[in-house]
Amino acid sequence: MTAPELAEALQFALDAAEAVRGTTSPNPPVGATILDADGRIAGVGSTAPLGGPHAEVRALAAAGERARGGTAVVTLEPCNHTGRTGPCAHALIDAGIATVHYAIADPNPVAGGGADTLRAAGITVHEGLGADAVAHGPLRAWLHRQRTGRPHVTWKYAAGLDGRSAAADGTSQWISGSDARSRVHDERSRLDAIVVGTGTVLADDPWLTARLPDGDLAPHQPLRVVVGFSDIPTDARVLDDSAPTLVLRTHDIDEVLAALTDHPDVLIEGGPRLAGAFLAAGRVDRVQAYIAPIVLGAGSAAVQDAGVATIAEALRFRRERIETVGADVLMTLVPERD
Amino acid sequence: MTAPELAEALQFALDAAEAVRGTTSPNPPVGATILDADGRIAGVGSTAPLGGPHAEVRALAAAGERARGGTAVVTLEPCNHTGRTGPCAHALIDAGIATVHYAIADPNPVAGGGADTLRAAGITVHEGLGADAVAHGPLRAWLHRQRTGRPHVTWKYAAGLDGRSAAADGTSQWISGSDARSRVHDERSRLDAIVVGTGTVLADDPWLTARLPDGDLAPHQPLRVVVGFSDIPTDARVLDDSAPTLVLRTHDIDEVLAALTDHPDVLIEGGPRLAGAFLAAGRVDRVQAYIAPIVLGAGSAAVQDAGVATIAEALRFRRERIETVGADVLMTLVPERD
Repeated sequence: MTAPELAEALQFALDAAEAVRGTTSPNPPVGATILDADGRIAGVGSTAPLGGPHAEVRALAAAGERARGGTAVVTLEPCNHTGRTGPCAHALIDAGIATVHYAIADPNPVAGGGADTLRAAGITVHEGLGADAVAHGPLRAWLHRQRTGRPHVTWKYAAGLDGRSAAADGTSQWISGSDARSRVHDERSRLDAIVVGTGTVLADDPWLTARLPDGDLAPHQPLRVVVGFSDIPTDARVLDDSAPTLVLRTHDIDEVLAALTDHPDVLIEGGPRLAGAFLAAGRVDRVQAYIAPIVLGAGSAAVQDAGVATIAEALRFRRERIETVGADVLMTLVPERD
Repeated sequence: MTAPELAEALQFALDAAEAVRGTTSPNPPVGATILDADGRIAGVGSTAPLGGPHAEVRALAAAGERARGGTAVVTLEPCNHTGRTGPCAHALIDAGIATVHYAIADPNPVAGGGADTLRAAGITVHEGLGADAVAHGPLRAWLHRQRTGRPHVTWKYAAGLDGRSAAADGTSQWISGSDARSRVHDERSRLDAIVVGTGTVLADDPWLTARLPDGDLAPHQPLRVVVGFSDIPTDARVLDDSAPTLVLRTHDIDEVLAALTDHPDVLIEGGPRLAGAFLAAGRVDRVQAYIAPIVLGAGSAAVQDAGVATIAEALRFRRERIETVGADVLMTLVPERD
């Protein structure tokens, strides 16, 4: 294979994985591309929802006989165990694949070992193609969960230049512009769970659903999670039938995360005290800050009570990315410790 | 002249103007480059402090006889009146300049008309070269003052992701990283005035001086202005002899600005209530927000009481520039109305 052929195959695999993010849990969202012996793309596949075939199997099915003597480009080491589906390593061997490139080794001791099985069958195996893009992309949350045993937590907020997420009278619609709001809906459609505090439900009565640009519900909806002791009305929008909802009567952050073990990709959407509790507990793995070009000068801050008493104790992050989304600026950061 | 020759000459003129920004008030900081008849740079000059020669005169002096038949590239229309110095238009004519490019017409009815004088003497005159760079660069504040009669006000602040400029116990050193602090000192050295409230003097006891990287005072120091009714101690650092200081016992923003008519480039450095008062009065012409990658979760916000009661009244800005300064992000914005 030439380098451009491999790069193109990797991009197809990444896109396929990203497209199913949020729909495969607790399985990882994986993408696979099969190139025929002449380096032409013969099939692309991604992980089906739990119980369905894995990415390699679907890509091989699309490629058919063209897989023989070809190359597989996969975002994760092909699995080696017979779970609900047969092992992908065997499927690649049976299809006559000559070479396998995978981005990241499977850290799971049960599923791992696929590379050894492939090599034993005479297949040339390379690790590392696209490792960075995969680790920061579609497999980010799943790898975090494998490594730590906890879901990956993103704290997302929207605020003005002065850090306020609501005006003096409590109004907050809309701080962000329409581009940012569309992007949040798109992101929600690829998450496992969205967490809010009861205070946010009582103040804003949000749906917490993922909607398409035309307003329809997206095919995949994350689990809605409401945390706290306040009672919420039975007609709260978050309790409607557009998506499942979990109500957790606790303030213990690790209890919340334990309840979400099968939901590796979790978003905290507010309010300020819930965000503060996650931050104080050191359980925020990524920050997505939508900074709108407005000043409010009064009203609720985006975060409260993060356990910081003096400047030396400030919680420190490091920039991962800065981008503009319409009139807003999106800053993505990770804890400095990472 | 070729386009690259003109572009290079313009860059020299812009740099020369920027280098004297803050030292020429109430005169505009202007830069001028003289190209000889072969298009080679023969002299560069910038406005001297009040009473000294203008940029064109200094550039012509540097060029000497090489100016004859050459081209002058100037950031502002050469002046036509005999103030403390002779008119620049006549100096260009006397030196035998053949062509003049200036960026921006002089809006001052007394000094203006230089272009007509040059044309009447047979010189080819072009307006507009580098107009945008000049209007958003060295002449920004001066043009604003010519247009509105008021100083140009920049509100600069440093805050964490949650908009707080101090921790719960009042500590705020340092929110920004060292790169941002160096940049602020460099910026101060080209300002006319820095304004703070008495509360900031009482809380932080700042010097408000411009320092060089080695800690020495910069050659030019802006006027330090303290606004408010609280008494400040006679040994406050802001009252030391490293720079002049003006104490204004008022809360009326327009009174403050009226006192600074001869200081076109003004920076508001805090605190939150003073910033809020300038914002509420519609007297902030530019925002420089240094956003540090930290969360405090408690403590004073960067701005308070900006006259906004509900989200529909939010003060709206538009991005002019986003850049990284060390670990911080600097967002420069202007009012949406502009």
